[in-house]
Amino acid sequence: MLDNIKICPGYRFAGIHCGLKAGDVLDLALLLSSCPAVAAAVFTKNRFPAAPVIYGRKQIAEGCDLRAVLINSGNANACTGYQGEIDVLTVAEVLAAALELSRSEIFISSTGVIGEPFPVTTVLRGVEALVADLEGGLNNEEALDAAAQAIMTTDKVSKIVGIEVETSKGLVTLTGIAKGAGMIHPDMATMLAYLLTDAEVDRQTWQAMLQRVVDKSFNRISVDGDMSTNDTVLALANGVSGCCLTASSDLEVLEDGLLQIARDLAFMIVKDGEGATKVVEITVTGASGVAAAEKICRAVANSALVKTAFFGQDANWGRIIAAVGYAGVEINPELVNISFDQVRVVSGGVRDPHYSEEAGAAVLRCPEFTVKIDLQSGEDEFTLLTSDLTHDYISINADYRS
Amino acid sequence: MLDNIKICPGYRFAGIHCGLKAGDVLDLALLLSSCPAVAAAVFTKNRFPAAPVIYGRKQIAEGCDLRAVLINSGNANACTGYQGEIDVLTVAEVLAAALELSRSEIFISSTGVIGEPFPVTTVLRGVEALVADLEGGLNNEEALDAAAQAIMTTDKVSKIVGIEVETSKGLVTLTGIAKGAGMIHPDMATMLAYLLTDAEVDRQTWQAMLQRVVDKSFNRISVDGDMSTNDTVLALANGVSGCCLTASSDLEVLEDGLLQIARDLAFMIVKDGEGATKVVEITVTGASGVAAAEKICRAVANSALVKTAFFGQDANWGRIIAAVGYAGVEINPELVNISFDQVRVVSGGVRDPHYSEEAGAAVLRCPEFTVKIDLQSGEDEFTLLTSDLTHDYISINADYRS
Repeated sequence: MLDNIKICPGYRFAGIHCGLKAGDVLDLALLLSSCPAVAAAVFTKNRFPAAPVIYGRKQIAEGCDLRAVLINSGNANACTGYQGEIDVLTVAEVLAAALELSRSEIFISSTGVIGEPFPVTTVLRGVEALVADLEGGLNNEEALDAAAQAIMTTDKVSKIVGIEVETSKGLVTLTGIAKGAGMIHPDMATMLAYLLTDAEVDRQTWQAMLQRVVDKSFNRISVDGDMSTNDTVLALANGVSGCCLTASSDLEVLEDGLLQIARDLAFMIVKDGEGATKVVEITVTGASGVAAAEKICRAVANSALVKTAFFGQDANWGRIIAAVGYAGVEINPELVNISFDQVRVVSGGVRDPHYSEEAGAAVLRCPEFTVKIDLQSGEDEFTLLTSDLTHDYISINADYRS
Repeated sequence: MLDNIKICPGYRFAGIHCGLKAGDVLDLALLLSSCPAVAAAVFTKNRFPAAPVIYGRKQIAEGCDLRAVLINSGNANACTGYQGEIDVLTVAEVLAAALELSRSEIFISSTGVIGEPFPVTTVLRGVEALVADLEGGLNNEEALDAAAQAIMTTDKVSKIVGIEVETSKGLVTLTGIAKGAGMIHPDMATMLAYLLTDAEVDRQTWQAMLQRVVDKSFNRISVDGDMSTNDTVLALANGVSGCCLTASSDLEVLEDGLLQIARDLAFMIVKDGEGATKVVEITVTGASGVAAAEKICRAVANSALVKTAFFGQDANWGRIIAAVGYAGVEINPELVNISFDQVRVVSGGVRDPHYSEEAGAAVLRCPEFTVKIDLQSGEDEFTLLTSDLTHDYISINADYRS
């Protein structure tokens, strides 16, 4: 089932239907470490953080080691005020009691509709069933798959990755699951990801590593430009492998591995973007300053007109030029070159003399391609993944709650 | 035909098909003043200004009085390099000769696809036909309507307004036409507007007045967040009425009139937004600083998720809260109130206890409504008009060139 996906030792999983969603769709997930794990996390910057985000931030700030992560879909527990925060505490208390842990070892995430009262009774009943499920008949692979499914909202497919990396202390495993298909934007939106390893690593190192990895992976994707109230990337290191990583070469190996699984999950999120039919890499090079490259890159990646042209497989490079021009960065139009994969489209701010519409259209018919914008004004660059804007995006989001 | 629309004395109009668009769709328009008119203009801030924008900026900077405005649809003459600029000069020269004017009295605008070579021969042939058409059988009302149609691109309806205002010097008329349905954003995008008056007014006063009016009208609308290379608002005052306005009370009357026709045209543009089925006013009040109010207002007005919810007639206020939260402004979530028209939805950052989904949905079923966001943190406010994001937007823009 999960071919070539390495499952990190020292973790168990469960995913069940507790009644937050209609039908018998899975909606409650549990990740359980066999011993206390060093935890790092990156959260949404939205000024309306959801109740579990407020709670999780405190845990991370206090340096709590974690044993268990409970995630529900179907309700975001966001904009639920003081009652929402009490509900998080209640759920954590009940799960801690059921697992014979302390409340501070329980991390909570929620995803779903914003602003509805949190159905705490349903979730509490679910917690009981979830713990029973841990002892149930699923092998760990099936259980991981169930957990990955239970955190989905508008996702069409579950997102699981797992690799092994070789350190000087021995083999270490990295496994990740994620959800997110809409509200995806720069600062991680309606996006949840859980990255697990059996390596042992110092807390400060782990947090700094996660922040760098998130900046290069989940913060480099854009589906619709919206940022959610619930975004969370949590990384756990439980040390079960016995590999205590302190040498900088070993930490580099670990960070490369963490970046690889984070990028793979980020790619899956864009590919599963609400209604998306294309994954497009936007690369800006030759900028004077990374900030300038990023501004232009984000303007192009977020342009509704550009994204709709991708859907129409229309090599309408004028819309890309227009987005470059309104990004708010001083540029020299006469120096700008644009390519679709290997096809040069624009040279010096005007259509390349050798460009043919057929060659451009052929690239846009591919499910994945790159748009490269070279400003020829410096050495800095920035890259983002984006998706196209389609009829299905409208259908999914116009009807989400009905 | 143009009921209740006052047509400004001292101007003649023409609109013909010259062959830039398929079929016999009108694609070339002429506005002709019977005497030199004081001109003011506001142009796109896009870093890739189209060739006619580059030319027009020079004319305005040099304080040229204008006699004629030539506007073509079907080709934007943008990203066409040096050749594009030569084409503008050629067209202006030929029109000046045909009308026995000097080239500096001719203003040029283009709208349509970006980056295609400008079909100058087709336009030059059209200029001849257009001048002949001036002498043709249309009365001035029919001719104005033809001109307004000839500047349309993806617009479904032509946009014409005309009013009279009473000054101490006598009656003055203000007439305006505009086009624009997509690429509409803060700083006026793929939007052309021509505002004509028969008042006499000093050039500096006229330019300052136009800038203030544009900031309160065309810069307060958003369809898709894209800003074009060609946006232009041109205002002409030819003094044919004999009313020379210098008293501040008269200038206020003129400015109020100019703002009224600009706002009416801006409203028509949003209503005709590509695929739009709703016109929604977003108002942020209680902000500490206009800039903060504007940032939040624009975040909500441009959110793909919010706009899709409007289309779905879904009172999904959580998406509005999320957009308020990611606008990059420090806010106090516990103070935020949100209403749909008269229906209070959110009080103190959570769902209002008296709110019912039915009441919210009833507002969203209206073709026009207001979303009011009160931050309760200051005295400043900002308002924008936006449209919904629909299947038709995707269809129009995925297939625009095919």
